[in-house]
Amino acid sequence: MEDPATRLQRAFLGEALGTFLLVLLTVGSAANAVLGPRLTPGAYGYDTLALGSGLAVLVGVLVSRALSGAHLNPAVTLGLALGGFFPWRLVPLYLFGQFMGGFLGALGAYLAYREGLLAQGLPNVFSTGPGFLRTAPEALYGFWGPMVAEVLGTFALMAVILFAGRDGRFLPLWLALTVAAVGYGLGGPGGFALNPARDLSPRLLAWLLGVEGAASPYAWVPALGPVLGAALAVALHRFHRA
Amino acid sequence: MEDPATRLQRAFLGEALGTFLLVLLTVGSAANAVLGPRLTPGAYGYDTLALGSGLAVLVGVLVSRALSGAHLNPAVTLGLALGGFFPWRLVPLYLFGQFMGGFLGALGAYLAYREGLLAQGLPNVFSTGPGFLRTAPEALYGFWGPMVAEVLGTFALMAVILFAGRDGRFLPLWLALTVAAVGYGLGGPGGFALNPARDLSPRLLAWLLGVEGAASPYAWVPALGPVLGAALAVALHRFHRA
Amino acid sequence: MEDPATRLQRAFLGEALGTFLLVLLTVGSAANAVLGPRLTPGAYGYDTLALGSGLAVLVGVLVSRALSGAHLNPAVTLGLALGGFFPWRLVPLYLFGQFMGGFLGALGAYLAYREGLLAQGLPNVFSTGPGFLRTAPEALYGFWGPMVAEVLGTFALMAVILFAGRDGRFLPLWLALTVAAVGYGLGGPGGFALNPARDLSPRLLAWLLGVEGAASPYAWVPALGPVLGAALAVALHRFHRA
Amino acid sequence: MEDPATRLQRAFLGEALGTFLLVLLTVGSAANAVLGPRLTPGAYGYDTLALGSGLAVLVGVLVSRALSGAHLNPAVTLGLALGGFFPWRLVPLYLFGQFMGGFLGALGAYLAYREGLLAQGLPNVFSTGPGFLRTAPEALYGFWGPMVAEVLGTFALMAVILFAGRDGRFLPLWLALTVAAVGYGLGGPGGFALNPARDLSPRLLAWLLGVEGAASPYAWVPALGPVLGAALAVALHRFHRA
Repeated sequence: MEDPATRLQRAFLGEALGTFLLVLLTVGSAANAVLGPRLTPGAYGYDTLALGSGLAVLVGVLVSRALSGAHLNPAVTLGLALGGFFPWRLVPLYLFGQFMGGFLGALGAYLAYREGLLAQGLPNVFSTGPGFLRTAPEALYGFWGPMVAEVLGTFALMAVILFAGRDGRFLPLWLALTVAAVGYGLGGPGGFALNPARDLSPRLLAWLLGVEGAASPYAWVPALGPVLGAALAVALHRFHRA
Repeated sequence: MEDPATRLQRAFLGEALGTFLLVLLTVGSAANAVLGPRLTPGAYGYDTLALGSGLAVLVGVLVSRALSGAHLNPAVTLGLALGGFFPWRLVPLYLFGQFMGGFLGALGAYLAYREGLLAQGLPNVFSTGPGFLRTAPEALYGFWGPMVAEVLGTFALMAVILFAGRDGRFLPLWLALTVAAVGYGLGGPGGFALNPARDLSPRLLAWLLGVEGAASPYAWVPALGPVLGAALAVALHRFHRA
Repeated sequence: MEDPATRLQRAFLGEALGTFLLVLLTVGSAANAVLGPRLTPGAYGYDTLALGSGLAVLVGVLVSRALSGAHLNPAVTLGLALGGFFPWRLVPLYLFGQFMGGFLGALGAYLAYREGLLAQGLPNVFSTGPGFLRTAPEALYGFWGPMVAEVLGTFALMAVILFAGRDGRFLPLWLALTVAAVGYGLGGPGGFALNPARDLSPRLLAWLLGVEGAASPYAWVPALGPVLGAALAVALHRFHRA
Repeated sequence: MEDPATRLQRAFLGEALGTFLLVLLTVGSAANAVLGPRLTPGAYGYDTLALGSGLAVLVGVLVSRALSGAHLNPAVTLGLALGGFFPWRLVPLYLFGQFMGGFLGALGAYLAYREGLLAQGLPNVFSTGPGFLRTAPEALYGFWGPMVAEVLGTFALMAVILFAGRDGRFLPLWLALTVAAVGYGLGGPGGFALNPARDLSPRLLAWLLGVEGAASPYAWVPALGPVLGAALAVALHRFHRA
């Protein structure tokens, strides 16, 4: 039997490594779609974002499942703790691993795409929001549309975690395809963070790099919306068991 | 053991919640593809509709499977009742949950994309038909092409449900990919509703919002075509067992 | 226990129904991509063909697996018979079901897209070859490139059937994704038939409808190439067991 | 029981056949995307590369799994040997099978697309690097961005192999989707080889054919980067078990 310190180390490693890969590939997909260094202009469609982000979740979940249970998302960790499925005393460790892994993942994507990003004046491929991935940003969406999208999208993700049943072998696929589904269906207004670590950690890096628009009050939307959506799914799950 | 009232509540919750998510993400994908708020124009292809709709089914089925058996579609419920696989007395409850969930899902998609939809004069991203998703609509297809597509597409969906075997763990994936397949193969003429709740509930919302073309006699096609297609699959399944 | 006549009826029904759905959705995807009745021009990419055709195989296999074993392809039936995995006396019944189902599937796609096809002067969305799906056809590829593609592509498909192991629950997914993979990788020169019933039956319909280019000597390529490719995979499988 | 010589033959056959199919379909997808012989220009997006390459891995793994364990990649073989999961004495046999299969796969793709490639002056669809698939190549990325992408991308692939658990029935899907995820997320700077056999063998063919840019010092990046990334994942896996 493992001693508890080792178990905590493994859990921390799992969350940090899994969120590292999730954010590396998610931010990398955004950079890839915006910079478009292959094929003709126009070859990079929305699928690069939706499928790229969904499959990034698959990789993160596969790698961290046996180590930490693959939360990789503060909203999921807080939701599970709220629902009584996860001990509150481990929440800080998980959140720290997630935010740290997310920062390193964004850094990895930056290092891979550095030359292309610098050549285009550091567009914001890091953090979500109305100006995310728009070369000609339009202030079309304010706070409410993206907030509805973050809340409902993370509600869907958390509902799949809570209601989809216990055959964990399929879970990496279900989570990946759910994130892709939410990307297709609700990614328009704000760019679907669904995960505070996916947004805030890359945003911190973007701010340190001097990316325009990183330090925006919009950051509250991907910080609070996903937690609210996850909490709603937990409440519904509690109610249906009562 | 559960008492019967609780079981009915759970079934209603499952159908309403599952159809809510299905329609939220399906209508949301259509809005996303039409409004195109990310990347350059042209970045949103037909894949957004076909894969977005298919994955929306995955999310709905995953969440409602254990609660209600994941019909999420009046044509499926009526087909199963016709085939003797589902009690007629539960049909009204299921249909009510489906139509109610579908209306709320369309409302959720509207709230998320409201600013973008208003800025473009409320294009019809809600209900299917020849003018669905066309900024320059052409009255190319009348009733018969879309009707053939709805009948054959729902026939395929119901045939998968009836013939694909009993390993339910794969079923969410099979249903999602079947809807995507029908979207690719038969979505052209009318836009593949395959499900009266996916069309009529968003259509009601669109009519309340004043969307042009919502109150069209075309509504009979997505209302009757899917039921007819499902009934054909049930008849074929009966015949082959005889 | 079933009597033998019923078993043969079920097998015939399975092959006819499965190939009907396979060809319906494959030809339908091609029509959808060429006619492009939704979204802006350019929204229909090669993914519509590759994923549409792959998922069409999924639907056909799911529906016919329990009835006939889901060959749905004369090259597969002949390959399995050559390898000693399938009795020669059933080959004519299977081939007849496949060609008949393929004809009806192409007819179904024609009926769904009839108005759009007529409005564009009946482009060839039915049978593969150098002019398939090209509004401005170029006689770039002759016979040899497409023949290499058909042989190697069907070799890959048959190798998956023979070598991928016996867990049949995954097989519908493996076959669908293999056809999509071959569509992406080898679909360029001729349009990836990989299946004589997918090409010759729609070609017969196209010829009856007067579609230009349907009665072309190119038909030998999708007729013979897949059978040759399947036979090569069978020979390799035999060798490795020796 | 098999005698050892037969077992080695089967292992060699598996690696050669699997890498043949992997490279055939990967290089074929690149040729398909660049030449674009179907539909209108612009119909071929980045998805053709990311999904095409991922599904090529699926086909290779499915066919070779029971024969050789489906390494199909010198970086995977070396990583497994470094980690003590694979005997060093078999490494040369596996690598020879992989490089030979890769060469034949590239040759197969060349034969299928020969007429199209010659008509466009033999663009480099074979080996990765900054000029890969760009008709108007820009020397934007040097060595470091692509090296980071190759190291991190193969790290992700090897981490999935080591950490994703032992249910091998899902592994073909996990590997395929991981390669697609890395293609979306990290394919921009250099084109994601992730596998020395996928790059060096087609590069040798390209050099023999006189393709411009084939004999570039860039070849060190796809040769060394994947091995380094795989070794990092093995080191992390060792550490976490300690």
